[in-house]
Amino acid sequence: LTEAALGARHRELTRLRTLARDRSARDQAGLVVIDGPRAIDGALARAASIETLYVDVEAHGAAADVADRAAAGGIAVHQVAPGAIARAGDVRANAGVIALARRPERPTRDVLEHGDRWVVCAEINDPGNLGTLMRSAEAAGATGIVVAPGSVDAYNPKTVRASAGAVFGIVVLEEYIVTVLNDLAAHGVHRIGAVSEGGIAPWDCQPPGRVAVVLGHETRGLSGLPVDELVTVPMAGAAESLNVAMAGTVLLFDLFHRAESA
Amino acid sequence: LTEAALGARHRELTRLRTLARDRSARDQAGLVVIDGPRAIDGALARAASIETLYVDVEAHGAAADVADRAAAGGIAVHQVAPGAIARAGDVRANAGVIALARRPERPTRDVLEHGDRWVVCAEINDPGNLGTLMRSAEAAGATGIVVAPGSVDAYNPKTVRASAGAVFGIVVLEEYIVTVLNDLAAHGVHRIGAVSEGGIAPWDCQPPGRVAVVLGHETRGLSGLPVDELVTVPMAGAAESLNVAMAGTVLLFDLFHRAESA
Repeated sequence: LTEAALGARHRELTRLRTLARDRSARDQAGLVVIDGPRAIDGALARAASIETLYVDVEAHGAAADVADRAAAGGIAVHQVAPGAIARAGDVRANAGVIALARRPERPTRDVLEHGDRWVVCAEINDPGNLGTLMRSAEAAGATGIVVAPGSVDAYNPKTVRASAGAVFGIVVLEEYIVTVLNDLAAHGVHRIGAVSEGGIAPWDCQPPGRVAVVLGHETRGLSGLPVDELVTVPMAGAAESLNVAMAGTVLLFDLFHRAESA
Repeated sequence: LTEAALGARHRELTRLRTLARDRSARDQAGLVVIDGPRAIDGALARAASIETLYVDVEAHGAAADVADRAAAGGIAVHQVAPGAIARAGDVRANAGVIALARRPERPTRDVLEHGDRWVVCAEINDPGNLGTLMRSAEAAGATGIVVAPGSVDAYNPKTVRASAGAVFGIVVLEEYIVTVLNDLAAHGVHRIGAVSEGGIAPWDCQPPGRVAVVLGHETRGLSGLPVDELVTVPMAGAAESLNVAMAGTVLLFDLFHRAESA
């Protein structure tokens, strides 16, 4: 790779940095920043529309491998100067590979009428937790995840990375929480709210076939949102609480399995 | 705080840095490095023997609060120069507070004879995953966790931080894996191995009252270790696998609850 070719990437990398850091720039461009080999692999496995992949000329191992797979799949792969990706990405400094994908088409609220398993995030502030929940939701068989405005951006690069590609594997609906909860009720979906205390144990819950699990703020909880039932993961010992991603993972697997057996 | 007093901390902080980075130094000193306010809070809640707490003179919020609580509890609290903790700790740069605690007394293998819920980590390499598993294990009601030599150090500062104090709340046994699995069998504990494919679903498992969940390497799995039954968390969609901390969390809550109902 010539100095000139490396230099020519400069403007693209500046754009990449802006997209990685600025939600409104991402929204306007309709692009998703996918950081690191695992998330890119996950996106490829789910047939995400990856437009461009940037890989460090000195990348090796998983980063080089995923770039090879992307190139073999017809994706434009650009090599960039050593360290340039670490400076462009805001997420994990040394992954050595970063991709830009087209954002999946935004669904409308009508999507809630279909599908039997929903996850509703009322107020998840940590992008890593939201991404972990997306990964668990997909693995547990969710139709989709609702990300209310009180939560972090569903396409935050840290969320995308933690989702390991799951953000491309399930429906992602960004919509007001009360509207969603009312719609779900109107469509006959049983709304189960997760709270850190005062709910019944998930294994004492008998959900019907169609169910939505509603996850609130780490400490403020659900703040009186309209749900049909409250569940709490019982905790032993001095454990005050699991984080919302871990508690949510336990609940999604348990409750979706119970709903399936209903 | 005078310049002289700040300077006097220099040797202590050098020692702290060594302890944070060097397992054998920690082992020899019998000390645990606890990084950040949440983990320190968790250690206090579990009556860990905290000897010293270092707090940035400019710390505020959670870091300053936990230092105040520690001081009120009679723990020696030392203020240090701005940024000095970020340089001493190897873990999270800006927590602003770090503590040293005495390591809990090492249990012997005899401990496996007692207690009904064990978690056995054959080969967990990521300290964050191990810490998350400790937190889940405690919350799910585990007696203790076995950390085999193929795994990361149970008292790695990143593990301690991710455990949110749980490392002080359950028995931690560092012992060879096959020895432990044989001992558990001899004590009549049912050994359930978690594998990423080929096992039965946890909800099809009927564990007896005493149970050990055995977690292997992220990709190599259990490599033929002696267990009584294999379970697999069923995955939907394109999800290849959850990480070992998430899958383990699902299994611990589900299987320990089933064992309790046995």
